[in-house]
Amino acid sequence: MLRSIGRQWCCSAAFQCRRSKRAITTIVGQQLKAQEQQLHEQQQQQQQEVHKIDDEVSRLLALKAKLGGDAAPANQKFTLKTPKGTRDYAPQQMTLRQSVLDKIVQVFKRHGGEAIDTPVFELKEVLTGKYGEDSKLIYDLKDQGGEILSMRYDLTVPLARYLAMNKISSIKRYHIAKVYRRDNPAMTRGRYREFYQCDFDIAGTHDPMLADAECVKIVAEVLDTLDIGDYVIKLNHRQLLDGMFEACGVPASNFRAICSAVDKLDKSPWEDVRKEMVDEKGLDGVTADKIGEYVRLSGGAELVERLLSDEKLKAVPNAVKGLEGMQLLLKYCALFNLDHRISFDLSLARGLDYYTGVIYEGVLKGEQEQGPSAAKTAQNGEPATSEAGGTVGSVAGGGRYDNLVGMFDPRGKAVPCVGVSIGVERIFSVLESRALANKTKLRTNDVEVFVASAHKGLHEQRLRVLNQLWAAGIKAEHSFKLNPKLLAQLQHCEEHQVPLAIVLGDDELSKGLVKLREVTTRQESTVPLAELCAEIRRRLSP
Amino acid sequence: MLRSIGRQWCCSAAFQCRRSKRAITTIVGQQLKAQEQQLHEQQQQQQQEVHKIDDEVSRLLALKAKLGGDAAPANQKFTLKTPKGTRDYAPQQMTLRQSVLDKIVQVFKRHGGEAIDTPVFELKEVLTGKYGEDSKLIYDLKDQGGEILSMRYDLTVPLARYLAMNKISSIKRYHIAKVYRRDNPAMTRGRYREFYQCDFDIAGTHDPMLADAECVKIVAEVLDTLDIGDYVIKLNHRQLLDGMFEACGVPASNFRAICSAVDKLDKSPWEDVRKEMVDEKGLDGVTADKIGEYVRLSGGAELVERLLSDEKLKAVPNAVKGLEGMQLLLKYCALFNLDHRISFDLSLARGLDYYTGVIYEGVLKGEQEQGPSAAKTAQNGEPATSEAGGTVGSVAGGGRYDNLVGMFDPRGKAVPCVGVSIGVERIFSVLESRALANKTKLRTNDVEVFVASAHKGLHEQRLRVLNQLWAAGIKAEHSFKLNPKLLAQLQHCEEHQVPLAIVLGDDELSKGLVKLREVTTRQESTVPLAELCAEIRRRLSP
Repeated sequence: MLRSIGRQWCCSAAFQCRRSKRAITTIVGQQLKAQEQQLHEQQQQQQQEVHKIDDEVSRLLALKAKLGGDAAPANQKFTLKTPKGTRDYAPQQMTLRQSVLDKIVQVFKRHGGEAIDTPVFELKEVLTGKYGEDSKLIYDLKDQGGEILSMRYDLTVPLARYLAMNKISSIKRYHIAKVYRRDNPAMTRGRYREFYQCDFDIAGTHDPMLADAECVKIVAEVLDTLDIGDYVIKLNHRQLLDGMFEACGVPASNFRAICSAVDKLDKSPWEDVRKEMVDEKGLDGVTADKIGEYVRLSGGAELVERLLSDEKLKAVPNAVKGLEGMQLLLKYCALFNLDHRISFDLSLARGLDYYTGVIYEGVLKGEQEQGPSAAKTAQNGEPATSEAGGTVGSVAGGGRYDNLVGMFDPRGKAVPCVGVSIGVERIFSVLESRALANKTKLRTNDVEVFVASAHKGLHEQRLRVLNQLWAAGIKAEHSFKLNPKLLAQLQHCEEHQVPLAIVLGDDELSKGLVKLREVTTRQESTVPLAELCAEIRRRLSP
Repeated sequence: MLRSIGRQWCCSAAFQCRRSKRAITTIVGQQLKAQEQQLHEQQQQQQQEVHKIDDEVSRLLALKAKLGGDAAPANQKFTLKTPKGTRDYAPQQMTLRQSVLDKIVQVFKRHGGEAIDTPVFELKEVLTGKYGEDSKLIYDLKDQGGEILSMRYDLTVPLARYLAMNKISSIKRYHIAKVYRRDNPAMTRGRYREFYQCDFDIAGTHDPMLADAECVKIVAEVLDTLDIGDYVIKLNHRQLLDGMFEACGVPASNFRAICSAVDKLDKSPWEDVRKEMVDEKGLDGVTADKIGEYVRLSGGAELVERLLSDEKLKAVPNAVKGLEGMQLLLKYCALFNLDHRISFDLSLARGLDYYTGVIYEGVLKGEQEQGPSAAKTAQNGEPATSEAGGTVGSVAGGGRYDNLVGMFDPRGKAVPCVGVSIGVERIFSVLESRALANKTKLRTNDVEVFVASAHKGLHEQRLRVLNQLWAAGIKAEHSFKLNPKLLAQLQHCEEHQVPLAIVLGDDELSKGLVKLREVTTRQESTVPLAELCAEIRRRLSP
């Protein structure tokens, strides 16, 4: 029943003319309320029954545990794995990841960023209505009594909630944390359900484009400092896109749907996108073709000039405002020496609903090593094929969203925001394959000195020496065997790239001496125990 | 029906003698299976119905979104908050948190730690049967099709899963991440449902107590480096506890239950704990009183000696092994100069089921500032009252768990582990209240230079100067207003403790000069633009 009503509304809603929309919204709103009430009651009943079952299950499990005592349960039958779309980071990967994140944080701090952190889940209502078609990808928590929660889908909506809740009207914040999307990820291509985002956002009421240009500058600085290859930062403006749609004859109610079709241009050819516009989104072919003319355009300040005198666009205030914004942004970017890095690109649309102004995307140019595909979204680093067939990868993206904070404020008070998200998963995967290709082996620990025994019976001496080293802040370790073989200890040092080894022996110890060995050269010298820490520091200083 | 069967089993199971246990386990096992099958079918039915409802709900929401178009939804009626038991970290808190975590990581690295990371959720089966009574606190994800997932409850079980899955038999790893417990937290006392854990663990087959002693050393180094006040590290041994229970006449099947009662001694007086043992856990009063004698004891090596010649304990192999272990541990701790920091304490029991050997807990001594309560568990920093009535706080804890990895290995291959978890939430809260009391204001950003305009029309000049500073790696910002007031700009510097300001003015610029101002002294000097970066570096170098 519900389903058929749904379909009916769907069809009629899509073709409503704008004048009658308000009346219908009211009627439909009342029907929705009634349906919701009914659903709510049904759901509560079901939940009560489910709760009963859960209770019985926990009771049985508790019993089982009691019977099993403290013994290990029969070894499990399930496959030992991480959840679909997630992965562990091993020490080697963590080392790479930490160095990437450190560099990014350095850039964020260079621009005055302050860090915040928010919970990994939010009240479900906080996320509702923010992600358009993608809402279906949100992870929900089970209702275990109490609040209904969902995992954060990005860091932007939690920021908006944070700003509204704390009545903050101005901040430059960065946030590095994992976000969650119930996608069907192609993990071979470095796409995940749990992945890191690195966001920098500037909130506040400012003069036009100053903060926006700084975000574009940050994208460039991050990509420069990570040194992951040549890139371009594509720029566009949501107001211009809307103006352009209007100029082509798209009904306003269809702007977002058409915009999300345009967004697919970086992985699908124009023919497919046109088909989606006409067949799925009910646009007439002539209108689609007009859009097709525009979205092929890209360039610099000269393109803005040309479009400002375009007859169709000139007549649409939104288009003119968007173009004037682009003009100012391009000027500021030129002052930041970004001319050779940016491209005004009318096919750039960005998926998310909440953008209201400038949008941008940092894209790696033709990485042949990545195979015949290229990346679409900066967020989870999935590569996709560009129209040109070249291999590119989107590694950063963002834009202006002036209305999001206002959605959370009880009085609707807006806090204009602009921000950028660095697609670190894609960056990790580029750098990981590069390290693999170069056979680079990163050190995964920082141990400076290994304390070895030359013969049996020296473990207490080792502990004394270690204690002395640690007290001096020297990173040191030893074998957890009482009597390890000397060769095994020295091999450990070479394998783990530990630069120095101390070799303890009764002969030297009786004279208050120890042997200090440089692992790479295998040179040994004798050092008085009392001078050991100072000598090690001297050897380690660059 | 299920409930009554459950109760019956419960009563009979508790009083089974050990010989008949196996037969009963088999029968009960079959009954459990049948019950589970029935439950499973019931659950599936329920879930299908719930899914239907979910589908209708999403359809309605999609319709709603379509009708509402892209406009902000009417501002939400729900209270703007973070989920129960969670909090945001503001920049001030993040600065403190980051400095604490940095210091802890430094200690972990000094001992050769490597970092790993695991997903925030695991297959539910991974967590099942690992936490005893606390399993009810696990957050489950909603079944949205596919795998059944739960949020991690600690970092230890994910480590064990990681080691078994990757067949790693030796590692020193640290892991700093959030964990989740559906507790009813007293947040005024710094207890949360989402909180950080900082874990260091040593996995591998080693000679006795060497790795264990290093973990105790790490607790001491962390607490020393954080400088949060005087502390004691309580030590005990699960084998000794079991041996002591046996010596007192506790049935083996009741060891874990009695152990978890002993664990409450740090927040409840002996009378309450005794009551729990007798009334709830079915122990006879005489046995309980014998336990009461032992758990009052604490001391050092001399106490171990005394207990080794205790008639009752001497007769129980587990007790002797535990005491010999303690003897060795105390010896190694003495070599690490920890004598004045440690206390062998027979009342220390630790809540978690999986410990098999040494256990320890770092406890802050009498912090009067914390009020009349003190902390029980290191994990989420809840304070509780000590028996003595003094205020103490558990800020670190851990122990040896030799069987956990084996639970995940298909062939049951064990990897012995010992580790420590630093209770950073409690540490944050101690340091936060101290900062508050001292009115310390931490800088939340690192900006070195603010670029100001002395008069109108200089914003493009500002951008040029900023570009030059950023290129030189100098942390710099400006106002996002075209024509900000000079006073406002200088006030911003003073408020945010920015050390230097550049003041641009047409007069100086025409001569290639700018004014450089030291914010605290308000002294200004004139510097050629070409030498600006070098001069700033000179001023900033310590």
